[in-house]
Amino acid sequence: MKIGIVMGSDSDMPIVQKAMDTLKSLNIPYEAHIFSAHRTPDEAKAFASGARENGFGAIIAAAGMAAHLAGAIAANTTLPVIGIPCASANLDGLDALLSTVQMPSGIPVATVAINGGANAALLAAEILAISDAAIAKKLAARRAADREAVIEKNRKLTEEK
Amino acid sequence: MKIGIVMGSDSDMPIVQKAMDTLKSLNIPYEAHIFSAHRTPDEAKAFASGARENGFGAIIAAAGMAAHLAGAIAANTTLPVIGIPCASANLDGLDALLSTVQMPSGIPVATVAINGGANAALLAAEILAISDAAIAKKLAARRAADREAVIEKNRKLTEEK
Amino acid sequence: MKIGIVMGSDSDMPIVQKAMDTLKSLNIPYEAHIFSAHRTPDEAKAFASGARENGFGAIIAAAGMAAHLAGAIAANTTLPVIGIPCASANLDGLDALLSTVQMPSGIPVATVAINGGANAALLAAEILAISDAAIAKKLAARRAADREAVIEKNRKLTEEK
Amino acid sequence: MKIGIVMGSDSDMPIVQKAMDTLKSLNIPYEAHIFSAHRTPDEAKAFASGARENGFGAIIAAAGMAAHLAGAIAANTTLPVIGIPCASANLDGLDALLSTVQMPSGIPVATVAINGGANAALLAAEILAISDAAIAKKLAARRAADREAVIEKNRKLTEEK
Amino acid sequence: MKIGIVMGSDSDMPIVQKAMDTLKSLNIPYEAHIFSAHRTPDEAKAFASGARENGFGAIIAAAGMAAHLAGAIAANTTLPVIGIPCASANLDGLDALLSTVQMPSGIPVATVAINGGANAALLAAEILAISDAAIAKKLAARRAADREAVIEKNRKLTEEK
Amino acid sequence: MKIGIVMGSDSDMPIVQKAMDTLKSLNIPYEAHIFSAHRTPDEAKAFASGARENGFGAIIAAAGMAAHLAGAIAANTTLPVIGIPCASANLDGLDALLSTVQMPSGIPVATVAINGGANAALLAAEILAISDAAIAKKLAARRAADREAVIEKNRKLTEEK
Amino acid sequence: MKIGIVMGSDSDMPIVQKAMDTLKSLNIPYEAHIFSAHRTPDEAKAFASGARENGFGAIIAAAGMAAHLAGAIAANTTLPVIGIPCASANLDGLDALLSTVQMPSGIPVATVAINGGANAALLAAEILAISDAAIAKKLAARRAADREAVIEKNRKLTEEK
Amino acid sequence: MKIGIVMGSDSDMPIVQKAMDTLKSLNIPYEAHIFSAHRTPDEAKAFASGARENGFGAIIAAAGMAAHLAGAIAANTTLPVIGIPCASANLDGLDALLSTVQMPSGIPVATVAINGGANAALLAAEILAISDAAIAKKLAARRAADREAVIEKNRKLTEEK
Repeated sequence: MKIGIVMGSDSDMPIVQKAMDTLKSLNIPYEAHIFSAHRTPDEAKAFASGARENGFGAIIAAAGMAAHLAGAIAANTTLPVIGIPCASANLDGLDALLSTVQMPSGIPVATVAINGGANAALLAAEILAISDAAIAKKLAARRAADREAVIEKNRKLTEEK
Repeated sequence: MKIGIVMGSDSDMPIVQKAMDTLKSLNIPYEAHIFSAHRTPDEAKAFASGARENGFGAIIAAAGMAAHLAGAIAANTTLPVIGIPCASANLDGLDALLSTVQMPSGIPVATVAINGGANAALLAAEILAISDAAIAKKLAARRAADREAVIEKNRKLTEEK
Repeated sequence: MKIGIVMGSDSDMPIVQKAMDTLKSLNIPYEAHIFSAHRTPDEAKAFASGARENGFGAIIAAAGMAAHLAGAIAANTTLPVIGIPCASANLDGLDALLSTVQMPSGIPVATVAINGGANAALLAAEILAISDAAIAKKLAARRAADREAVIEKNRKLTEEK
Repeated sequence: MKIGIVMGSDSDMPIVQKAMDTLKSLNIPYEAHIFSAHRTPDEAKAFASGARENGFGAIIAAAGMAAHLAGAIAANTTLPVIGIPCASANLDGLDALLSTVQMPSGIPVATVAINGGANAALLAAEILAISDAAIAKKLAARRAADREAVIEKNRKLTEEK
Repeated sequence: MKIGIVMGSDSDMPIVQKAMDTLKSLNIPYEAHIFSAHRTPDEAKAFASGARENGFGAIIAAAGMAAHLAGAIAANTTLPVIGIPCASANLDGLDALLSTVQMPSGIPVATVAINGGANAALLAAEILAISDAAIAKKLAARRAADREAVIEKNRKLTEEK
Repeated sequence: MKIGIVMGSDSDMPIVQKAMDTLKSLNIPYEAHIFSAHRTPDEAKAFASGARENGFGAIIAAAGMAAHLAGAIAANTTLPVIGIPCASANLDGLDALLSTVQMPSGIPVATVAINGGANAALLAAEILAISDAAIAKKLAARRAADREAVIEKNRKLTEEK
Repeated sequence: MKIGIVMGSDSDMPIVQKAMDTLKSLNIPYEAHIFSAHRTPDEAKAFASGARENGFGAIIAAAGMAAHLAGAIAANTTLPVIGIPCASANLDGLDALLSTVQMPSGIPVATVAINGGANAALLAAEILAISDAAIAKKLAARRAADREAVIEKNRKLTEEK
Repeated sequence: MKIGIVMGSDSDMPIVQKAMDTLKSLNIPYEAHIFSAHRTPDEAKAFASGARENGFGAIIAAAGMAAHLAGAIAANTTLPVIGIPCASANLDGLDALLSTVQMPSGIPVATVAINGGANAALLAAEILAISDAAIAKKLAARRAADREAVIEKNRKLTEEK
């Protein structure tokens, strides 16, 4: 299964890039699109509606300001939809966070931190990993590596003192 | 021309009622619908897409939480769309306000105050009044009456002291 | 009909410029003024009071901080008034947003996003378009172009991968 | 000299009452009015413009939501204007606070706490007291009484334990 | 596969109940626990660490205030962890929302709306549905029913007018 | 009468400088001090306690973060105390604003906008002007000049178009 | 050593009561006072200045709104000062939290959660426990009891299902 | 006794450095570690659990975003835990502040200001000083020096004018 990545504007690319890089590092196939909840709602809907049949396992949606993209995708699929609230020029992403996470009952969006591109990808991988032991193994390895990196940094810090 | 009123849920009715009452008091015809940006996006889209041909002059959209309804309507029409952010159980409507007003460039939503049902109707009336002198006259009369009411309250206050 | 644009200070010009450029691109005449709700309240009032007779169809008001300009204009006309909350040195425009949008019942201000100059102009155009088919056509064309631009960006993105 | 008290709506009366009671307790004459920055801007302006000649020493202005009243008064007088941000149904008065305090350079509003009716009156009294030794004395006495009250409460608390 | 539900305190039960009811309605087995990130961190860790082997497909974690539970669970498993920020006596759940969603890179928490018990369950179901066609079908049926309910409400509203 | 200006730290000097420049331009004598509510509370208290006898008419207090200085001054005098909340490295001055304006009943602080140095001075001047016609005249002249400046900018803008 | 507890007003007593009950349950002596940072600053200062000599080990200070009490105490002692921000009628304690925690460099206040009376007492006990093994033992026992209570609740929950 | 300093990431080092420098200046021994509440929870727990026996008197924990580190440490020790909320790329540290300070009853974290590295160290020193007269003396000297520095700055300011 592959992951769909949609962004509301190409200005969200730096955040999305972190998601793509993370998926690549896990060898998880993905397909990225620029769909605007407001400018190309039909394309967004078509993508979401057909996503399950087209082999997607989850969809990551990144958008800023009144960030409706994740919700608009979620309204058209029962695949898990992961929302990345993107910070824009004002309000530090608080508008995008509330627009993404405060979904009404019935249509959840799995929201990650403001600008949390890497975590969106990891969450998508965790979802696939439920029924894909290879991904689960890679995630465990990544966690172990993250852990080692912190332990190593701690060792250096305690030695240097 | 008539005004469309859409609400995301029947729990928004108390707010919407103020808009309907205000339009009624101005003799402006309206048509109210419950459309959910997330549960019935197709119906919302169909309504918005056909609104101009169906004789609507503006659309009022009321929704709470991650309030996407006004934006979803606006994405499918170039009629003026007026958004009412509705306060829900938490956050006092701040989530709905930011989700409604912080629209990306290209798709404006004319946002009024949190729970501002009456003002949404008055704004719709002001929009129609540009080319409808009768409504303009009624609005001017209403303003005069509002003014008189404040003046009268002030007179009572200054007299009673 | 033409659009009035008022700003509270020449420091708001970069935001207002986006509104003016957008109106120009739609061939909609406008007249821009610097009026301060606090320093030149009489001039602001005179402009608002006479706006309908002087051929204005809507007024855009841009201001920052305790942004009273849109409300002060709206208090003196029943033309639609569009408020642009401008971000200033602190608080990211949250003060201007609340000062602009939270109008009391009776005097609506159609508020757009913080620094939303282009959307203010588009909203003004949408208002005129109700009774001006030529503008409606231009708005539809602009929407189509925006849509095409996103579709094109999406195509490039999907091809390059 | 007397104090002017203006409120944007009679719904602000409970807050304003605290100001009136405080002034009464200090034997400072006052005159209360209901003026709306948006519904009766001319009356508000007339009052402010003539306030100095009419024997006012300071003006207290109470308003909620996009609370423009204090600023509108301040724009029309160089008397000290004291703003009371009133909490309304949503946002706990944060909108009124920012709309009142974040005044642009040139037109200050002396803002007190949300719903701070008594403090607005005390501030007005402090202003008059600069050149009125009798009021200064009363204020000092009130401070002493407040102090005694706290000391007494503390004594009771420490004794009862 | 079953869903784990953990709550930081039995005061979170009303929110968690909505999640349990939703899972029940979808015939998805679940196991609920009270684990405190701070009072029983070892039990929380033991549950999370063994969750995959014990047949869990996802874990829902509900907590309020400085809501660390979801993050503490996520730190000990690579299963998808769904966080429900619970509103407590002050701050309307904003503290719990930020404590839940703003996770550092490497350890995602899929955050739903404040008090969003039902959506947490639906998100868990969506995750299981990727490889469980029966759940996917039930989710689609539920969406259809939700859609019908809105359509029905809309029909009643338009008829009654 | 002269104005006292106290600041919590010399890092507040850029804000205070605007207050000093404004007072200078009005020929109002002032005396500036660095007093910390926390590091030199005794000096702050001594200054406040003796201010009336020492010929001060009002005290301006500028501080950032948990800005207690204005309140500490106000606790020790019944002269009007004007608080300037100063923005520091984080939170954009919201902490200083709330710490300055939300004073308990009995001890008002006349709060101006975040970083509002000039307005603090103007407010002080307005307070003195109640019983000093010369200052009142200067303030009126300044208002007129401000008004002319806006009118001039507006004329240039309308001519250039 | 005993703990000092000071509150800004007797309206803070319900919060302070939780601190007193907690200290009582740990057999730690305390002395409670009502001192206002603004109404009885001298008494507050005298208490703080003499606290170390008078056998206090730490001071808990509870206050609301522009909560200066903890800071005012801290300015006059180098004993650890624990601040409890108390929620008042508006803003849910956010004003008190920022006024208490955002202390400038040099004068720390150990801030606990909004209305966190019990935790303030526990923190005070933890501080004493560094050099008092009996208190340390009681704290450990309390933690164990808290842990058991959660485990018991969890057992009941898992059994009843 | 020595002070433990833990940080969630080496990106928090600039804030932690201020704490280390302050402890060094007071001749208080410390031991710094990088422990992540999420990446190395076991190491964090082991450190906290053994801290009392290993001679620590208090633990300072610095972390950003959903800052769980201080709480995770506090859950595993009854030593006083001091939390430093670190500002990260968005939200100015408000997320870290709420995640650190809003601890549930039973597990206090003594929270200092956002990025308040020096104050965290001073608070730790104050805690040790209860039973270490030498540190108490150094703290008093530091306060006196801080006081002198402000007095000196004030003298320069008043002389230069």
